[in-house]
Amino acid sequence: MKTDTQKLSFASDYLEGAHPAILERLQETNFLKTQGYGLDPFSESARQKIRAACKCPKAEIHFLTGGTQANATVIDALLNNYQGVLSSNQGHISVHEAGAIELGGHKVLALPNKEGKIDPAVLRQWLVDFENDANHDHMVFPGMVYISHPTEFGTLYTLRELEEISSICKSYNLPLYMDGARLAYGLACAGNDVMLPDIARLCDVFYIGGTKCGALFGEAVVITRSNLIPHFFTIVKQHGALLAKGRITGLQFDTLFTNDLYFRIGKTAIDASERIRTWLKENGYRFRYDSPTNQLFVIMDNDKLEKLGESVEYSFWEKYDDAHTVIRFATSWATADEDVDVLISTLHSI
Amino acid sequence: MKTDTQKLSFASDYLEGAHPAILERLQETNFLKTQGYGLDPFSESARQKIRAACKCPKAEIHFLTGGTQANATVIDALLNNYQGVLSSNQGHISVHEAGAIELGGHKVLALPNKEGKIDPAVLRQWLVDFENDANHDHMVFPGMVYISHPTEFGTLYTLRELEEISSICKSYNLPLYMDGARLAYGLACAGNDVMLPDIARLCDVFYIGGTKCGALFGEAVVITRSNLIPHFFTIVKQHGALLAKGRITGLQFDTLFTNDLYFRIGKTAIDASERIRTWLKENGYRFRYDSPTNQLFVIMDNDKLEKLGESVEYSFWEKYDDAHTVIRFATSWATADEDVDVLISTLHSI
Amino acid sequence: MKTDTQKLSFASDYLEGAHPAILERLQETNFLKTQGYGLDPFSESARQKIRAACKCPKAEIHFLTGGTQANATVIDALLNNYQGVLSSNQGHISVHEAGAIELGGHKVLALPNKEGKIDPAVLRQWLVDFENDANHDHMVFPGMVYISHPTEFGTLYTLRELEEISSICKSYNLPLYMDGARLAYGLACAGNDVMLPDIARLCDVFYIGGTKCGALFGEAVVITRSNLIPHFFTIVKQHGALLAKGRITGLQFDTLFTNDLYFRIGKTAIDASERIRTWLKENGYRFRYDSPTNQLFVIMDNDKLEKLGESVEYSFWEKYDDAHTVIRFATSWATADEDVDVLISTLHSI
Amino acid sequence: MKTDTQKLSFASDYLEGAHPAILERLQETNFLKTQGYGLDPFSESARQKIRAACKCPKAEIHFLTGGTQANATVIDALLNNYQGVLSSNQGHISVHEAGAIELGGHKVLALPNKEGKIDPAVLRQWLVDFENDANHDHMVFPGMVYISHPTEFGTLYTLRELEEISSICKSYNLPLYMDGARLAYGLACAGNDVMLPDIARLCDVFYIGGTKCGALFGEAVVITRSNLIPHFFTIVKQHGALLAKGRITGLQFDTLFTNDLYFRIGKTAIDASERIRTWLKENGYRFRYDSPTNQLFVIMDNDKLEKLGESVEYSFWEKYDDAHTVIRFATSWATADEDVDVLISTLHSI
Repeated sequence: MKTDTQKLSFASDYLEGAHPAILERLQETNFLKTQGYGLDPFSESARQKIRAACKCPKAEIHFLTGGTQANATVIDALLNNYQGVLSSNQGHISVHEAGAIELGGHKVLALPNKEGKIDPAVLRQWLVDFENDANHDHMVFPGMVYISHPTEFGTLYTLRELEEISSICKSYNLPLYMDGARLAYGLACAGNDVMLPDIARLCDVFYIGGTKCGALFGEAVVITRSNLIPHFFTIVKQHGALLAKGRITGLQFDTLFTNDLYFRIGKTAIDASERIRTWLKENGYRFRYDSPTNQLFVIMDNDKLEKLGESVEYSFWEKYDDAHTVIRFATSWATADEDVDVLISTLHSI
Repeated sequence: MKTDTQKLSFASDYLEGAHPAILERLQETNFLKTQGYGLDPFSESARQKIRAACKCPKAEIHFLTGGTQANATVIDALLNNYQGVLSSNQGHISVHEAGAIELGGHKVLALPNKEGKIDPAVLRQWLVDFENDANHDHMVFPGMVYISHPTEFGTLYTLRELEEISSICKSYNLPLYMDGARLAYGLACAGNDVMLPDIARLCDVFYIGGTKCGALFGEAVVITRSNLIPHFFTIVKQHGALLAKGRITGLQFDTLFTNDLYFRIGKTAIDASERIRTWLKENGYRFRYDSPTNQLFVIMDNDKLEKLGESVEYSFWEKYDDAHTVIRFATSWATADEDVDVLISTLHSI
Repeated sequence: MKTDTQKLSFASDYLEGAHPAILERLQETNFLKTQGYGLDPFSESARQKIRAACKCPKAEIHFLTGGTQANATVIDALLNNYQGVLSSNQGHISVHEAGAIELGGHKVLALPNKEGKIDPAVLRQWLVDFENDANHDHMVFPGMVYISHPTEFGTLYTLRELEEISSICKSYNLPLYMDGARLAYGLACAGNDVMLPDIARLCDVFYIGGTKCGALFGEAVVITRSNLIPHFFTIVKQHGALLAKGRITGLQFDTLFTNDLYFRIGKTAIDASERIRTWLKENGYRFRYDSPTNQLFVIMDNDKLEKLGESVEYSFWEKYDDAHTVIRFATSWATADEDVDVLISTLHSI
Repeated sequence: MKTDTQKLSFASDYLEGAHPAILERLQETNFLKTQGYGLDPFSESARQKIRAACKCPKAEIHFLTGGTQANATVIDALLNNYQGVLSSNQGHISVHEAGAIELGGHKVLALPNKEGKIDPAVLRQWLVDFENDANHDHMVFPGMVYISHPTEFGTLYTLRELEEISSICKSYNLPLYMDGARLAYGLACAGNDVMLPDIARLCDVFYIGGTKCGALFGEAVVITRSNLIPHFFTIVKQHGALLAKGRITGLQFDTLFTNDLYFRIGKTAIDASERIRTWLKENGYRFRYDSPTNQLFVIMDNDKLEKLGESVEYSFWEKYDDAHTVIRFATSWATADEDVDVLISTLHSI
C-alpha cells in the first residue's frame, strides 16, 4: 500500500489518511442527503455510541475538526474573561498552539511538569498560594485545569492521579478538561487503568481524538454534565469550528465506535511501539521520558543519526548533550508489522 | 444513488458528501505517508493548479475547513485592531456567523445592500462621509471591504461593478476580500462576466468555496499578492484553522481543479436551476431576488406550501405578505436531472 | 473667571475643570495617606452616599475614569462571548467608541432609534423575531440592553418607557444597563419623572456620570444587585480601568453627593439651557430633536452661522438641507448667567 | 501635613494625592475652557517640555491614566495578533495586571529574571532558540520586548545593558518598550547612568510614570519614532484610555516638567530611601534585592515585625525562611524628613 518511493517513516502519527472502514462508509453514504451542522443521523448515532462507551448517558457531544480548535473553543467557553487555564508548562496549549488560547483572551497559567504531567500536589499548592496571595485580585484567576492524556511526552495519568486532580478541581470549583488527542493510544496501553467511563466521571469536558487515531480529521468533544456550557453550538460556530457537513465527522466517529474499532486501532499502534521499545531496551538504549504509549523518545548517539536518517524518517525532539540527541518514533493505527521489522533491522545495522 | 426513504430535497447545496472523484482519490492515496499542515505534495499540486486557473503565479494559497473560519481568519489577519470591515448589511459575516468577526475584535460596518450586493456609489459615499466626519478619530476606521460572490441572495457582481469596487478600495488603500463560498455556481452562470483571473486581479484575497461546491469540506484562501499577510500559516494555526492532515483538503482541491471539474460541477447546478427557473417563470411565479445562480427565491402562495412540503424539502426564507412566503430552492453539483423532473411535476400538481 | 482671550463657548459640557468644591477637597485631603484602588475612606463614603441617593443599600459601586471605559468594562463583564448588546443605532457604544465593545469580542446589535431612544415596542419585536428565527443559533444572541439617559440627542426616557423596557428585559433575562454620562442634566429636568431610585430599581447596572457633570473625570458604576458580576474589581483591573489612587475619583463623587451638589449643578445647566431654548423658540427657531436637557440641537440658516461663529463656539452637528445646518449648544454646571446673556444678545444681533 | 490619626506609612509610593504645585495649577486654570481629548494647550505645552527633556523633538506623546492601561494599550498597538511580548517572568504585565495583555489577545513570553531584569544574554539566546526551533510556526512569535525601569524589584538597568538589549531588539526588528512607572526614582539615583535622552534613543516606546511620581494619576506615553503606531489616538480611545478632559493629565505633566520638578521630587524620595538604607546596612540588615531606588526589600526577623507594625505601615513582600520575612519600605516625592527620622528611631527601638 506504500508506494515504492516512500521512505519508511515513524515521524508522526498522522502521516496517512484514515482507517479504510471510514473511507468505505463515506463511499456508501455519499449521496444520502442529510441536514448540516451535526444535526444528521450519523452524528446522532456516533453520539449514542460514545455515550455508551463512556457510560455517560447525558453527555453532550460535539464534533470539531482539530485539536487546537477544540482546545481554544472549549477553554474560551468554560472561562470567564478574568480567568486563565492551569496547564503543564509543556502542555500543547502552552507551547504549540500559536497563542490560540490568548487570542481568546486567556492566560495559560503554567505549572512545572513531571514527565509531562501535572503533579496533583503541585496543583494543590499553587491554588493554596493563589488564595493566600494578598494581591490576587490583581492577578489572573485560575478558572479551569487542562491536562493531556496521553501527555505530549507520551506519559499517562494513573487513575489515582486523575482522581486526585479531579477532586482538587471539584473542591476549588474548577472544571477539569482533558485533551485526548491520542486517547486511543492511552486506552490501549497495557498498564493504563484510566478507562473512558473514568474520564467521563472525573472530567467536566474532554475530547476523544480522531485526527491522530484513525480519522481523516475530527475530535469528539464530550461535555459530561448537561448544560455545563449553554449554547455551545453557537460558541462553536463563532469560533469557526462548525463544519457545514457535520455528517463527515459524525460518520467517522460512528465508524470508530462501531465494533470497538477505536480500541482495536489503538492496540495496533501500542503493539508496534512495544516491539520497538523492547528491542531498544534490550539493546541498551535509554529514553528521555518513560512513555508507555505510541511515542518513543529515544536518546541516540549523534553519529548513528545520519545513518538512520538515510532510510527512516523520525522526529528530532531536542539536543540531549553534545554527543546525543533525543528523537521520537511514533507508531499509529496504520503502522504495519513489516514496517516495525524494517525499523528494527535498520537500528540493528547502524 | 438516493435511498428509497429519502424525500426529494432542494433545501440546500450541501446535503450530500463529495463528488465521487474526490472519494476515489482519497481511497487511492490513503496509505501514502505525507507531511502534515499542508506541506504535502497534494496541497502543493492543488496550489499550482489554482494559480494557473487564476493566472496568478505568485498567489499564496491556504486550505481552510469552512467559510466562517476562512472569513474570521482572513479578516482578523488583514485588519488592525482599530479597523472594521465594510460589508453588505446582509453579508454572511454581518448576520450568520454568530459574531465570529467581533470575537476577533472587529466591527462589521454594515452598508445597505442592493439585491445582496454593495453598490459602488454607496461605498464611495460612505468613505467620503467618514473622511469628512470631524469625529472620525472616535469611530471604527474602515480597514477592508468584504463582498460575497455569488451573494447570499444568489446575485452576481458584474465585472464592471467589481472593477469599480476594486478601484475605490485601491484609492482608499483598503484590501478587497471576496467570499466565494458558492463561486463554482457563479463562474458557471451564462451571464457571468467575472472569471477567476479577474477575481485574482481585482481582489487582494478571496476564497474558492469547496464545501458547497463538491468537496466534503474545505475552502481555498487565495492571497493574490505575495507577502500581503506575513505569517499567515501561524495566524491560521492560532485561529484553530490549520488541519493536521492538510493533504485531505489539498487533495480535494487538486481533484476539483483537474480537468475543469470545479467548472463542470458548477454547470450541473446551474443547468438544473435554469430548468426550474424557466418553468417557474413560464408558470407565473415571481422571485424575491433576481438570482441567476443555483439559489432560487420563489414567492409562493401559502396554501400551496403545505402540499409542496409533502414531497419536497425546501428552505423557508421569509414571510412575504399575509398570503405569500418566500422559499428557496437550491441546486448543487449533485442535483440529478430526474430530481428536477420530479420537482417540476410536483410543482405542476399543487 | 474666564480669561479675556477666551471666546464664549457652548461647544460642549466638558470644557472646564471641576466644580470648585472638588478642588477644595482635593487640597484639604492631599497629604492624607490612604490605601489604593478604591479601598480608601473617601471612596467608601461616596459609596454610602450614592447608595442612599439611589435607595439601594446593597448596590456595589466602582469608580472608573471615563464613559467609554465604563461601557466597555461593564458590557464585557455582563456578556458571554456569544452574546451582543442591544443598543440604539445612534447609541454612543454603536458609533463613537472606536470599536471598544467589539475589541471585547461583542457585537453591538443596533436597533432603530426614536429621537435617540429605543422604542420598547421595537425592542420587544426584535426579541420575538430573534426567538422565531430558525437560524438564530448561527447568529449573535442578545445578551443585554444598553440605553443612554439622557440620550446622545438630549432626550429622556419617561418612567413608563423605562419600566416597559425593564420589564421586557426581565422577561427575556437580559440585564439592562444605563449610560448616565449626563445623568445630572436629566435628573434636574422639569419634565423628568425618572429618579435615581427608579433607575436603581429598573436597571441592573448603570453609571452616574461625573466627567460631564462637575468632576475632573470619573463615572460611578452602580451594580444594583449584589453578586451580579463576580470579581468585578479584577475585571476592572484587567480592562486597565482601575485607578491606583482611587481616592481621587471617590472623593469627587463624595463631594458631588454631599448636600445635593450633583442635583444642584444639574439645575444650573438646565436653567441656562431653558433660557436659551425659550428665546430660540420665541424667535422662531426650530430644533432637530426635542431635547429637554442641556443640549440644544438648533436648525440654523447657514448665512447666520459665520456671523455667530465670530464670537461664539458651538458644535457642528449635521447638515440639515442646502440652506440649513444643525448646530449644538451645550450648557453645563459651569455655565454662567452672563454667558447666557451674551449668547442671547449675540443671537439677536445676527 | 499628616493628620494626627494617621500611622506612619512606608507601605507604597502612591499613598498621597499630588505635588502641591499640581493642585495649584488645577485651581488657577479651572475655569479656562479648552478642547477635550488632549487637544488643549496644557497638553501641548507638556509635550513640548517632555520632547525637550528627552532630546527627541519628533516624539509623539499621549497621556493615559494608569500603568496597566498604558501597558495594555501600547502592547496591543505594537503587536500583531500572532505575536507575544517578551518580559521578565516577574514583570508587572506578567504577574500583576490581571491578564490585561492576554485580554488583548497576546501571550506574555516570560524570561527568567536577574534581580527583576532581563539579562541581555538570556534574551539573545531565547531568540536564537526560537529561530532554530523547527516548529516555531506553531508557536507564539516574539513581537516586542517589555522592560520596566526601575524594575518591580527596584533595580536599574545600566546604560550598557540597555544598549545591549536595544541592539538585540533592533537586530531582530522587535520594538523595545519601557515601563517607567517609577522613572523619577530611577533618574534621581546616584548610580544611575540612564538618562531620559538615552531612553528615548534606545527605546521605541516608553512611558514616564506620573501616578507614582507626584501626579494624582497619569502616565506619559512617548513614541520615539513618528508614525511608529498609526492612529494611536483611536487605539487609545478604543481601549477606554482616552480622558475627555485630557487637559487634567496634560497640565500635571506640564507642571512636573517645569523647573525640573519631576527630577527634584525623584531626588526627595531617593534621599529618604538612602538614609533608611544606610541605617539598615549599618545595623546589619540584609536586603532581598540590591535596589538603589525608592523601594527597599528588607529581610526582617519575624519577631521584630509585630512590634514594627504597631507604629509603621510597610508592605509584606514574601516569606524568606521560617524565621524571616521580606518586607518593603517605599519612599516617595511626599516622604518628609521627619517621617524618616521616626522610622529610623522606631527601627532602633524594636
